[in-house]
Amino acid sequence: MCRWAAYRGEPLYLEELVTSPAHSLIEQSHCATKAKTATNADGFGLAWYGDRPEPGRFRDVLPAWSDCNLKSLARQIRSPLFLAHVRAATHGSTRRDNCHPFVHGIWSFMHNGQIDHFDRIRRPMESMLDDDHFNARVGTTDSELLFLLALQFGLRERPIAAMAEAVGFVEQLSLHLTGAARIRMTAAFSDGVTLYAVRYSTDEHAPTLFAAPMGPKGSYCLVSEPLDDEKDTWVEIPAGSAVILSENGLDAAEFNPVRERSLQPEARLEAMAG
Amino acid sequence: MCRWAAYRGEPLYLEELVTSPAHSLIEQSHCATKAKTATNADGFGLAWYGDRPEPGRFRDVLPAWSDCNLKSLARQIRSPLFLAHVRAATHGSTRRDNCHPFVHGIWSFMHNGQIDHFDRIRRPMESMLDDDHFNARVGTTDSELLFLLALQFGLRERPIAAMAEAVGFVEQLSLHLTGAARIRMTAAFSDGVTLYAVRYSTDEHAPTLFAAPMGPKGSYCLVSEPLDDEKDTWVEIPAGSAVILSENGLDAAEFNPVRERSLQPEARLEAMAG
Amino acid sequence: MCRWAAYRGEPLYLEELVTSPAHSLIEQSHCATKAKTATNADGFGLAWYGDRPEPGRFRDVLPAWSDCNLKSLARQIRSPLFLAHVRAATHGSTRRDNCHPFVHGIWSFMHNGQIDHFDRIRRPMESMLDDDHFNARVGTTDSELLFLLALQFGLRERPIAAMAEAVGFVEQLSLHLTGAARIRMTAAFSDGVTLYAVRYSTDEHAPTLFAAPMGPKGSYCLVSEPLDDEKDTWVEIPAGSAVILSENGLDAAEFNPVRERSLQPEARLEAMAG
Amino acid sequence: MCRWAAYRGEPLYLEELVTSPAHSLIEQSHCATKAKTATNADGFGLAWYGDRPEPGRFRDVLPAWSDCNLKSLARQIRSPLFLAHVRAATHGSTRRDNCHPFVHGIWSFMHNGQIDHFDRIRRPMESMLDDDHFNARVGTTDSELLFLLALQFGLRERPIAAMAEAVGFVEQLSLHLTGAARIRMTAAFSDGVTLYAVRYSTDEHAPTLFAAPMGPKGSYCLVSEPLDDEKDTWVEIPAGSAVILSENGLDAAEFNPVRERSLQPEARLEAMAG
Repeated sequence: MCRWAAYRGEPLYLEELVTSPAHSLIEQSHCATKAKTATNADGFGLAWYGDRPEPGRFRDVLPAWSDCNLKSLARQIRSPLFLAHVRAATHGSTRRDNCHPFVHGIWSFMHNGQIDHFDRIRRPMESMLDDDHFNARVGTTDSELLFLLALQFGLRERPIAAMAEAVGFVEQLSLHLTGAARIRMTAAFSDGVTLYAVRYSTDEHAPTLFAAPMGPKGSYCLVSEPLDDEKDTWVEIPAGSAVILSENGLDAAEFNPVRERSLQPEARLEAMAG
Repeated sequence: MCRWAAYRGEPLYLEELVTSPAHSLIEQSHCATKAKTATNADGFGLAWYGDRPEPGRFRDVLPAWSDCNLKSLARQIRSPLFLAHVRAATHGSTRRDNCHPFVHGIWSFMHNGQIDHFDRIRRPMESMLDDDHFNARVGTTDSELLFLLALQFGLRERPIAAMAEAVGFVEQLSLHLTGAARIRMTAAFSDGVTLYAVRYSTDEHAPTLFAAPMGPKGSYCLVSEPLDDEKDTWVEIPAGSAVILSENGLDAAEFNPVRERSLQPEARLEAMAG
Repeated sequence: MCRWAAYRGEPLYLEELVTSPAHSLIEQSHCATKAKTATNADGFGLAWYGDRPEPGRFRDVLPAWSDCNLKSLARQIRSPLFLAHVRAATHGSTRRDNCHPFVHGIWSFMHNGQIDHFDRIRRPMESMLDDDHFNARVGTTDSELLFLLALQFGLRERPIAAMAEAVGFVEQLSLHLTGAARIRMTAAFSDGVTLYAVRYSTDEHAPTLFAAPMGPKGSYCLVSEPLDDEKDTWVEIPAGSAVILSENGLDAAEFNPVRERSLQPEARLEAMAG
Repeated sequence: MCRWAAYRGEPLYLEELVTSPAHSLIEQSHCATKAKTATNADGFGLAWYGDRPEPGRFRDVLPAWSDCNLKSLARQIRSPLFLAHVRAATHGSTRRDNCHPFVHGIWSFMHNGQIDHFDRIRRPMESMLDDDHFNARVGTTDSELLFLLALQFGLRERPIAAMAEAVGFVEQLSLHLTGAARIRMTAAFSDGVTLYAVRYSTDEHAPTLFAAPMGPKGSYCLVSEPLDDEKDTWVEIPAGSAVILSENGLDAAEFNPVRERSLQPEARLEAMAG
């Protein structure tokens, strides 16, 4: 399990999420209180939108708490839309190419969660990518591949729907090849204009996702864990939800992975049990 | 172009090739005289055989000349068979997973050269791997993939023949998909008992390969460039050759990539020209 | 607080302490149970004695659990005397030069603990070093400086006595300049023949130190925390003790920092209170 | 010898100096044409001024050409005053703390050159620093120490004069302790408002320094080597000069290290010869 924070609104210094709060992302890298993994020390990353359509990105492999570059950049850079991530590795070694956020053109993506049996389904997942998306793969994580698959399935045109298709497809693959599917995720992604997030799990244990207003009116942050102890501030987003932060403020929708009915995990498992 | 050195014989401190000679591998990382790329500063690696069947491995991304760990290890470790490499990146970013030597079970492999149009043929090359070899791929270099392909084609049983098949297959792929094939390589590989090397190019510009006796009788080193200016010591291995260092001493053979006649580069290009 | 393990006896693969046990040093880097700091992810290091008088050394800044080089080296290298360390930074940034063990000629040293008010006494500590020891300082940690001070005070000739003088001197400096002295430490050091360790604190909270026989008769390891749950195996070394592992087996002695009586912390604090 | 570039004027993307020109700083890291050291692969750094009084800073140890973070940051960050540096190590190991620019409060500093016999004069140089400046030292380079010495001597109030005093003092130290003094340098430093540079050598071989207008009227860059082959654009600054870039445009002055007459190198050497 990793930890992340994202923001959309009036330009804000990255440090307001990354280093300053009581439970800042750097603080969480040392000691996350709600996550299953106590330490998120396998690298970190930032993607922020500025003057250009494509985001800036900064990733490195040291624990976030000991990286001087991260502190200085978070203090200097101000952005109206950014994603920040600290990693606890599940799949893929500790190297920059495996650190979130992943970026493709103007799109950025980061993820907290797990795809069970990834080793078994990695290859057919990769086979769905066209040459451009295939050649864009530089790391070995399940997260990067899920991002590329969603891009392949139309993330640019129908962000939430394409992500739902990608997740549903991964579930189907897993059911076909392993007889079971377990995906737990909170992911955030953006094109620099709108910020999207989804919280989802095939079981009852979806990783947490919270939203809170931050700074000027109409500005919000989305986080895997609250950044402080002000319980009234943070709204927990229910599992099976998508959140859309745009110029219209915060919007929410259901998030239902698209899959054929007969392949739903419950149905299949019942069938197997029967 | 990268630089490498390999040794088989009586146990020798790695520093005898890596740091001590006038043109040691570290010295070459700063200023290679025969290589096309003046600087080989995109990481380095060692694979050495000791008490265990599988080799030890040490790789890192700093220039070899500034890595204290490398100097200390090369001074302490003594081995009867080892491979050492300094990298100038052509394909794949600068990270440990892309540094040579690559290791799979008891086998190690390192490479200096280039496969033209690798971006176009990477995918069908990967598609030839069975699940085990596919899942063993952790980096993005052409070299690692060539190694896995040779393993797939039987490197364990017929080392030189399998490498010839792998290289020939890559040429065919390239001809089919790009209308041309250019591969230049000097590669070394080993199972911990025998040390193999090949020098080959589709054109007249095969990277250099030299052999010299070193230390006690029956001990030899193979290098991409001589380690000192004693011209009488170093024998240049001709292009299109394989070298085998075993308990029987140094042996040589032709190295002819296996490909269908009608797909030979010359033929195909003539056909295209016609 | 850091974690460490050291060994002296018949040649042993480093992995027997570093990666294999239930509470191996790598396991402890993720989750130390007795230490105050839960995570020791600010680098690691090895110093081992082999054929040469001076030890080999390997240090790096990633968390120990994610470093492939460490795993491979620990699996390949066998040594009759070695030190291994995982770091949780207190003084000095995360970089190789600040990772233990420190090495000077044939001597190696590693440390777990803290010197309060180090920023106030660093300069006079450095001023005690002669040019050779001063120029040998490459990092910014209190640990490296304590090691150099002990060398300056005669570690080569009278290891335990010189360490006691160094610690006593640091206490005096702290009392003079800050009115208080608090040092907590477990340190191990060696010349490649004998392995020394001390456990000491100015208060009741000396970091733990345990000893256990390991492998063939006459071989022992010393650790900051037991490497497994076999409670009968591990003997806790009392605070105020030195342990000496030599060809004569395990020996223990009192460890009393040498300082002028009138400057003892208790006396001084009483005086101040009076 | 290192390479550097600095800019003051209308806000400019850092990539205009760092990555885009024909002889950009990254290009020079691979192959500097006028410098003595062909490769500047021992790390790099940026310091840029933005909304805050103190500069942002980003430094790392990989060769500049292979660092993805550097490319992304240089493309995103726009600043009215920045310093950029690629390093070829002379004194001090390859680690972030030894990479330029150095920063202290609002001041930044970077340097290309050498101080002969630095090992002999390092200690008395450090002894001139008051506690605050002493404790600010985190690396081991001559450059960082020269910067701290200039701060100690009044860089904040009289930038050029204090630098001249610092350089003169270092010459004196070297003469006293080694009987000779050789300093070659081009340095740039700034408080975020004004950009200063000096070119100086005790002999005829001062490292090069060039100035050119860049972008909107009143904007200039200073570089150790021209960034392109437009010879008419680049004005070479003579040795023994200081350059001041402020809101008044480009100004120049003599740069004469302040030292007692009897200790001038020529005098001293004459005296010794006599």
